[in-house]
Amino acid sequence: MKKIAVIGAGGWGTALAILLADRGVPITLWGYDAGHIEQMKTTRANDVYLPGVTLPENIDLTASLGDAADGAELAVFVPPSKAMRSVAENFAKTQPARGMIILSCTKGIEQGSGLRMSQVIAEHLPENPVAVLSGPSHAEEVSRRMPTAVVLGCREQPVAQKLQQLFSTGAFRAYTSDDVAGIELGGALKNIFAIAAGVSDGLGFGDNSKAALVTRALVELMRLGETLGGRRETFHGLSGIGDLMVTCFSRHSRNRGVGERLGRGETIEAITQTMSMVAEGVPTARSAYECARKAAVVTPIIDQVHALLFSNKSTRIAMMELLGRELRPEED
Amino acid sequence: MKKIAVIGAGGWGTALAILLADRGVPITLWGYDAGHIEQMKTTRANDVYLPGVTLPENIDLTASLGDAADGAELAVFVPPSKAMRSVAENFAKTQPARGMIILSCTKGIEQGSGLRMSQVIAEHLPENPVAVLSGPSHAEEVSRRMPTAVVLGCREQPVAQKLQQLFSTGAFRAYTSDDVAGIELGGALKNIFAIAAGVSDGLGFGDNSKAALVTRALVELMRLGETLGGRRETFHGLSGIGDLMVTCFSRHSRNRGVGERLGRGETIEAITQTMSMVAEGVPTARSAYECARKAAVVTPIIDQVHALLFSNKSTRIAMMELLGRELRPEED
Repeated sequence: MKKIAVIGAGGWGTALAILLADRGVPITLWGYDAGHIEQMKTTRANDVYLPGVTLPENIDLTASLGDAADGAELAVFVPPSKAMRSVAENFAKTQPARGMIILSCTKGIEQGSGLRMSQVIAEHLPENPVAVLSGPSHAEEVSRRMPTAVVLGCREQPVAQKLQQLFSTGAFRAYTSDDVAGIELGGALKNIFAIAAGVSDGLGFGDNSKAALVTRALVELMRLGETLGGRRETFHGLSGIGDLMVTCFSRHSRNRGVGERLGRGETIEAITQTMSMVAEGVPTARSAYECARKAAVVTPIIDQVHALLFSNKSTRIAMMELLGRELRPEED
Repeated sequence: MKKIAVIGAGGWGTALAILLADRGVPITLWGYDAGHIEQMKTTRANDVYLPGVTLPENIDLTASLGDAADGAELAVFVPPSKAMRSVAENFAKTQPARGMIILSCTKGIEQGSGLRMSQVIAEHLPENPVAVLSGPSHAEEVSRRMPTAVVLGCREQPVAQKLQQLFSTGAFRAYTSDDVAGIELGGALKNIFAIAAGVSDGLGFGDNSKAALVTRALVELMRLGETLGGRRETFHGLSGIGDLMVTCFSRHSRNRGVGERLGRGETIEAITQTMSMVAEGVPTARSAYECARKAAVVTPIIDQVHALLFSNKSTRIAMMELLGRELRPEED
């Protein structure tokens, strides 16, 4: 490839830029905040979102979408989910080449519309092939070249295979799939369950409680995910159970951390104010709740997370309602 | 119930005795080591295997199987897996009443025969109903009344329901199932995967690597478990994915700890010598490997754990072989 644009200079966007720079391709990393971009140019690091990792020389930095898009064969989209529509809209105005592949690495569901990120992108860039990437992949570990496996999804398998070859280095493996919906839903929904797992931690419950909760979370993820168009096998894979586990158990997980602080008694407003990056589980709890109601799917964990985020429900009562349901056969 | 015998005074046996004592039923806790039993009588605690938790007054202690069995309506079997056959054989010699329920809480597969624990018990106690209990349940947390959910399996559903009523307190929930094989296989096999997860930790790999490994472990657990007679739904539940997750991610897990020390370069002999309790994943790796070969099931993770435990294979090479397989579609 002649050039790759990475659209979004958060932790994950920066880690992906570093990963791709290792392939020797010229990279342009775009961020919306010109001041932040200038700072990165000076320090050759993303001190705000991915401190301590040096940017390779073949990463250019820009706050201009036009500069980023110009001549790129691939654009990797990694903005926060709520900014995805405006980013896609503005990117379309640069009139990118028809063959330019758009790869979404953002985990979320649009509020109101209930659309997945690839669907939002396709509305504004209908002529471009759109692919998605998801799976258990902390940015910090990827940027430090630690072994990581993800799923790369595209309806057009030649595009998926091309991206697979590009992304897969010794330490980073990408598996291909054509279940775009399943990959995106797994990546988005697990962040809500991570908040619930964090609440369990914050309330002082142990691993037994969390294991019971996450077991039910997987069932709920599959039930809602299949209704919204994903495939069961995908939820058994890296972008389902794999990502769910690591997000619910890792101390690095932002969404689990939000839940833990909620469980300790902080308000969501206070927590959000102290965070530099978005915890996508918060907006996704709202959009998934809306999707579940529309589709008439039973989602007890999402409902409780929604209630404690947006209705100030007591975390202890929410958790006891989840853990203390009626005795009955396991398969019910 | 008039009396319950708990056969095995390790950490899990002691925690179950404490849990059942909370129901007000007289409990007799049996241990094979008379000196340990005397010590427990004096300190009213299991200082070796479950330190810091006081034994309720209605727990009697004995080193005589006859005393334990006498008058019991339920016998909870919790010896190490390799002692299960001799315990069942000796227990049978006490001529227990036909109606006495035997509940196995041991996680393992017998070497040589490939039998599950409930099958070993049934060979020696063919007239008694045999049930099993498994799921994500660290003994320390159960003994401290932290919220825990498990699965209780029995072919005879009235027996399962009776045990469910007995075991379920506010903090401890038991779900019933008739998939005895699936419950036992989930509980036994996950310990092997926990060793692999620990190796990944010990080698300094991160959460991304472990998530990829555990995702594949679940696929392997289901593949072998279904071949050996368990049901897929069970492996999706508490005694499958639930127990697998917590064992692979918890710092309290003995089997994960063994793997971590192997990954850091210690030998299995040196590790075993310093452990007071058995890490069941070690013998289970051998018996599961034998079962998999007999059934001609592909089990890459079990094979690597078997090789590094019993053939001194390098942990780094084993892990790289697991993480660095060919690029291909995820569903293969």
